[in-house]
Amino acid sequence: MTASIDPIDLASRLIAAPSITPATGAVFDVLEDALGAIGFTVHRFIAGEAPDGPVENLFAARGSGGPHFAYAGHLDVVPPGVGWTSDPFIPEIRGELLYGRGAVDMKGSIAAFVAAAARSADHPGTLSLIITGDEEGPAVHGTVELIDWMRVNGHQPDLCLVGEPTSVHRLGDMIKIGRRGSVNMWIEVAGTQGHVAYPHMADNPIPALVRILSRIDVIELDQGNDWFQASNIEVTDIEVGNPATNVIPALAKARLSIRFNDLHSGEALVERIRAICTEESPNASLVARISGEAFLTEPGRLSDIVSGAIRRVTGLVPELSTTGGTSDARFLSKLCPVVEFGLSNATMHKLDEAAAIADIHALTEIFELVIREALAS
Amino acid sequence: MTASIDPIDLASRLIAAPSITPATGAVFDVLEDALGAIGFTVHRFIAGEAPDGPVENLFAARGSGGPHFAYAGHLDVVPPGVGWTSDPFIPEIRGELLYGRGAVDMKGSIAAFVAAAARSADHPGTLSLIITGDEEGPAVHGTVELIDWMRVNGHQPDLCLVGEPTSVHRLGDMIKIGRRGSVNMWIEVAGTQGHVAYPHMADNPIPALVRILSRIDVIELDQGNDWFQASNIEVTDIEVGNPATNVIPALAKARLSIRFNDLHSGEALVERIRAICTEESPNASLVARISGEAFLTEPGRLSDIVSGAIRRVTGLVPELSTTGGTSDARFLSKLCPVVEFGLSNATMHKLDEAAAIADIHALTEIFELVIREALAS
Repeated sequence: MTASIDPIDLASRLIAAPSITPATGAVFDVLEDALGAIGFTVHRFIAGEAPDGPVENLFAARGSGGPHFAYAGHLDVVPPGVGWTSDPFIPEIRGELLYGRGAVDMKGSIAAFVAAAARSADHPGTLSLIITGDEEGPAVHGTVELIDWMRVNGHQPDLCLVGEPTSVHRLGDMIKIGRRGSVNMWIEVAGTQGHVAYPHMADNPIPALVRILSRIDVIELDQGNDWFQASNIEVTDIEVGNPATNVIPALAKARLSIRFNDLHSGEALVERIRAICTEESPNASLVARISGEAFLTEPGRLSDIVSGAIRRVTGLVPELSTTGGTSDARFLSKLCPVVEFGLSNATMHKLDEAAAIADIHALTEIFELVIREALAS
Repeated sequence: MTASIDPIDLASRLIAAPSITPATGAVFDVLEDALGAIGFTVHRFIAGEAPDGPVENLFAARGSGGPHFAYAGHLDVVPPGVGWTSDPFIPEIRGELLYGRGAVDMKGSIAAFVAAAARSADHPGTLSLIITGDEEGPAVHGTVELIDWMRVNGHQPDLCLVGEPTSVHRLGDMIKIGRRGSVNMWIEVAGTQGHVAYPHMADNPIPALVRILSRIDVIELDQGNDWFQASNIEVTDIEVGNPATNVIPALAKARLSIRFNDLHSGEALVERIRAICTEESPNASLVARISGEAFLTEPGRLSDIVSGAIRRVTGLVPELSTTGGTSDARFLSKLCPVVEFGLSNATMHKLDEAAAIADIHALTEIFELVIREALAS
């Protein structure tokens, strides 16, 4: 017999513990207390140093042996910004909504899952929570280190649900079964500064950069496939920074962002762009940062379990999507099949972030059904 | 019988009157005193307001009737910058050089011409000086307004020598018989900002700007002609100013500088670039500023007079050039044939600007010969 947990009360207490990314401390205390009360064994550790840390991470498990179903999420939140109607770190119910930073992304979701776990104390196998304090920031010392710790300590989930806010217009209208990969690249072309009246004594880096960008602009990476939209390249910035009308500049820079589907790898895309740079100018250089590779959990048992639970509680058949930005699911997908499902993302990262009280209750019911199905032997 | 003038002494006194562009006042007093002492009638007026003014202008004439030979120049100087060996506004002779801001550009030249005029008191016709306090700045209220004043008051030179520093390695190695035109253009392409993960909801302005710049980069305006080098387009700046790697920007800007020969007009070049912008994007706009049209004084009597005087004093046969930036000769060329000749430009606009004492004396001799020939009936 375990305690009953009110998801609105727990969400409110999590919101009341400010946790701007990277997060440590009080907000984890609140979660640990709740999990301890319903039979979970909790392990917490702090990783990293400024500026990417310190980051607190938490792994909690109940039960033993297989099957092992894991819920993953984060307790850190993005900065509130100014202009909120009420204090972003004092949870407030107005009308049918619970307001506060993190209400949908994703303290409301974590609270719903803990409340669902409280109702599911008799499950077979292992139920776990993988909770980091840095998903919104550089995410270097968060889920990646949790996964390392789990490997070392023999915790291997069979299925994983990431509780990110994936619903769009109504709770349950969308789940994510994959995500595109993401890579940023910085191109620099060096030249020789000079006076525009004497171009033969200078070497303008802009024409080479323009040639490089021209070739990039006409690339069609793919047409998309069954589960992914087409991969896309955007030139997001060009900077020369030359205030003088009569001066040929010494340096020209551009930045690209590529969101790519599972037909590509980040490294192959970097090499493709690097080759264009090299071909167009010996003075061009490229630096790249791959934020994540594309991944896909092919529709199957896990998406069926989540979709079925959604349909039974809400009547909706969710769209299986791979759109949007990156999430920690990119790391967890290396462990086991992963899908993402949570509250409506309409107010995430915005002023007056709020979750519908009814949605948090419905999400709790959905999570309860998912736990039951995922741990059925 | 007029006074004798030492050009080194006069140059020193002009340098000692600081006159960072736009200039008025004391430096014109020094010149007026010198010209008054050798029989010139001096008219001064101030034109313009901040930020392009006030600018002082001076017209001085001696004699009457034709022929009319004019010397044109400016008393303003560019800011000295920091790091001079001696105070830029305290003239100092070290070794064989006279140091000070304006020594070569162009107080040394003006002093040499006034000293030459002092030696030529018996000339027929009219000898005049057209001196502005704004050649280095926007040049809106300088020579342009002097020319207007001269027209209204019936002063029409037959030949004009602009005393800018045109010599390169040795005094007399180059005179300018024309100048290229210059136009700057600012291109803006507007778009719609958005998140790189949702490109269909944004409109990136960069691809259109890159297409425009690609077309501009391959333009070959001409191959040059007998007296001009090829016209040249430089893209001197690109600015997007988007710090966020995951944001598609709302605006992309570029700036061009075209230096063009007498095969083109500024307006036609602007329309040609504008057409490319319009063809590539309905959201592209262009703003242009034509600094000056190209002009050429075909080699003939004036260049022969100046070249002959140079050869007799220095032994050099000067190159007849149209290279370099713009000068007030672009305005004066509308009045009469114009050539430019003066001191070595090696230190102009730089720290420790300096003119060789011997060069100022030789320039005085050259100017004396030019005055004699130009005013011979």
